[in-house]
Amino acid sequence: MSDQRSKALEYASSNKESYLLSFKEILSIPSISTDPEHSVDMESAARWIATQLTSLGMENVILFPTKKNPIAFGELISDQRKPTVLIYGHYDVQPVDPLDLWKSNPFEPTQRGDNLYARGASDMKGQVLATIKSIEALVKTGGLPVNVKWIIEGEEEIGSPNLEAFISENKELLSCDFALNTDSGMIGENAPCITYALRGLAYFELKVFGPATDLHSGIYGGVVHNPANALAELIAGMHDDQGKITFPGFYDRVLPLSVEERSEMARLPINEKHYLEQTGVPALAGEIGYTAEEQATSRPTLDVNGLLSGFTGIGSKTVIPSWAMAKISMRLVPDQDPEEVHVQFLEYLKIKAPKDIRWELKVMAGGRASISSRDSTAVLALSDALTSAWGKKPFFKREGGSVPVVILMQKLLGVDSVLTGFGLPDDNLHAPNEKIHLPTWYKGINALIHFFLNLAN
Amino acid sequence: MSDQRSKALEYASSNKESYLLSFKEILSIPSISTDPEHSVDMESAARWIATQLTSLGMENVILFPTKKNPIAFGELISDQRKPTVLIYGHYDVQPVDPLDLWKSNPFEPTQRGDNLYARGASDMKGQVLATIKSIEALVKTGGLPVNVKWIIEGEEEIGSPNLEAFISENKELLSCDFALNTDSGMIGENAPCITYALRGLAYFELKVFGPATDLHSGIYGGVVHNPANALAELIAGMHDDQGKITFPGFYDRVLPLSVEERSEMARLPINEKHYLEQTGVPALAGEIGYTAEEQATSRPTLDVNGLLSGFTGIGSKTVIPSWAMAKISMRLVPDQDPEEVHVQFLEYLKIKAPKDIRWELKVMAGGRASISSRDSTAVLALSDALTSAWGKKPFFKREGGSVPVVILMQKLLGVDSVLTGFGLPDDNLHAPNEKIHLPTWYKGINALIHFFLNLAN
Repeated sequence: MSDQRSKALEYASSNKESYLLSFKEILSIPSISTDPEHSVDMESAARWIATQLTSLGMENVILFPTKKNPIAFGELISDQRKPTVLIYGHYDVQPVDPLDLWKSNPFEPTQRGDNLYARGASDMKGQVLATIKSIEALVKTGGLPVNVKWIIEGEEEIGSPNLEAFISENKELLSCDFALNTDSGMIGENAPCITYALRGLAYFELKVFGPATDLHSGIYGGVVHNPANALAELIAGMHDDQGKITFPGFYDRVLPLSVEERSEMARLPINEKHYLEQTGVPALAGEIGYTAEEQATSRPTLDVNGLLSGFTGIGSKTVIPSWAMAKISMRLVPDQDPEEVHVQFLEYLKIKAPKDIRWELKVMAGGRASISSRDSTAVLALSDALTSAWGKKPFFKREGGSVPVVILMQKLLGVDSVLTGFGLPDDNLHAPNEKIHLPTWYKGINALIHFFLNLAN
Repeated sequence: MSDQRSKALEYASSNKESYLLSFKEILSIPSISTDPEHSVDMESAARWIATQLTSLGMENVILFPTKKNPIAFGELISDQRKPTVLIYGHYDVQPVDPLDLWKSNPFEPTQRGDNLYARGASDMKGQVLATIKSIEALVKTGGLPVNVKWIIEGEEEIGSPNLEAFISENKELLSCDFALNTDSGMIGENAPCITYALRGLAYFELKVFGPATDLHSGIYGGVVHNPANALAELIAGMHDDQGKITFPGFYDRVLPLSVEERSEMARLPINEKHYLEQTGVPALAGEIGYTAEEQATSRPTLDVNGLLSGFTGIGSKTVIPSWAMAKISMRLVPDQDPEEVHVQFLEYLKIKAPKDIRWELKVMAGGRASISSRDSTAVLALSDALTSAWGKKPFFKREGGSVPVVILMQKLLGVDSVLTGFGLPDDNLHAPNEKIHLPTWYKGINALIHFFLNLAN
């Protein structure tokens, strides 16, 4: 083990108490981004982060104002030849209600056994602190082995409304080799993870128009194609009997899962029972030929997110509605392109929609899927780091959702993100009694020390 | 021509002025049933009707109180061996707004050319007056050739909420051979009509349940059967590619249209252009092998009346809804039974609904279709009467909607209704500038004189 590595780990080990004190400080600031009454707390939390960055010796520490909560930035470029890591995090937290279900005050961090209870402990102040404290250990034991930049925002829990503008206006400042995002998690105390792929999104609103106005179903029923029936027919045709999506060319760009990926995924301690329990459905469904985990993370899907037409109140009204609307979105996988999917959707409608209705398709949102090479320098460095900290190899997993900041960085900065984190499935994210498992948190700090050192080799 | 016939027609002809005065009197009472401010007017209108019946020599003239507006009753049983006709009508009218579009005050009956403008002129005070004035002509010229009973309600325009209870509690009092309902209309000034069939209704709410709560479509998309998609698939399967409904046994009781009926229907001056213009759809649809008029009046249909699921606001939300709902109703034709259709719907769902969702079917409303024999005594008497008054045979038509009072009389009294009326398509029912065409109205009175006399032969 290199000299700095053992020193840095030793530093982290002997400073557990001071690390914990820092952690409790930031957890005591009620930085609830959705609640305007906490705007002062948002400022306090941002300043607290900035102070930490300054005390680490970061340069250019700035609180960038946005329309709402400031973004904390800092950097240390020690050697242009070394890789530059952009560390992403957020200092805002979810609301705390229902407050009466908390066993201790959400903003008075309380230790019970191995756990530290507080809002934001796991999501994600603990993760941000882990990056800060790993860097501290390195700074104090010979300096940074890589260049780092920080971007710690205060609006993640409200959808990061000002992040795109900020990144877009500061591309030069944020330029880097890749991003480290610790907002992901583990699947068990002894199961560290690297998330290497996320699904993308293509979200549409489809409106079908029939008669000029709502009609009386007694007088006109049978003569016109009811737009709600027509919409149902169009939606039904979007899947075939194998659970595959029928848009022309929809699978053309879908990267197949490699044998290795599938066997890696099969190792995950997530089975069909897990999905049955989490969803409460009577039986799982999906695309034939794929496991539930593969379906949920690595295959494209099509879901109706909303339906509206005609009379939806209590009772009955014999109306033929003049229009019907569906919100329909697809989760995309690499290398699908949301704009191509839009064209495929239009193509489907041109082929399938009958002549007795009119339709309109509106694009609501879209983003590409992301996938990182599992043998990039950054991923290998992280994999080795997790192996060192836990004594066992991490799981490589894909996630089914999109992480907007990952898409933004890909789109605006042209960089991949490596995703990991040290939260556990029972950390009660977004729920009462959020906590973090402290032994896992300390291991996470060690893992990050390894990670930054591995990158320099 | 019999002595009484010519005398009665002569009476009607020489009393046009006094008939018109009466007509204007009742039209001057603003009996708007939906507006609580007019409750005094409802009483006045009911009393006005009762006074008319009394002056005709009717016996047992009673204003039956209901929870809302009174029902006027009267009867004259001159000879138990003669047929008894139950004359149905309503004295309430629709609201008048938008008032500024009226050319004259809706409750100051105003003659312009051949038309008399006022709210209720055509729907249906004019029709009620035509029955009263035809009976007057007969009473004054030798007496009633048949027995009559009257039931003139004041809540038709608000859905007759108290009529079922009233009929149900007074079956003996209302016993009759058949009902005359003049709340239907003509299809042109020289096109008198007899409506001999109405469609029935079976109205349901279908709810499909998927996950226990709304799910994130990123995390679970692909693993569960989205209930909104499942609902769409169930709805799409309810029609085959011929436009036929796929519920098991759905057509078993459907009486086929006879060759004669179809050729009668083809004579109607209602073509596909009419339906295209009235509905504003880009093209007509429906069951293959039937004309638009046949589809709209004489064939069973299935329409979605409402759809609701998930997120329906502005923007996008990536949710897998936990449930989806459709209001679905069928127009039924003779001899379909709404309760049997319920069983067929359940059967369809049992066969088609996949195991990965749950569903619930709720009965919302139902009523059988009705059809009168086109060669019953009553219909032949009416047909001959209309022929006498217009010098040409009437059109026999079926209507696609249900008329609740017809269903009630069938169900509770066991009698058919003959439906006719002397309103024209351009009478602006339920709209500003409602009117009646006076020459047609006078012809209607003559037709009813013929009708009652024909019944006695």
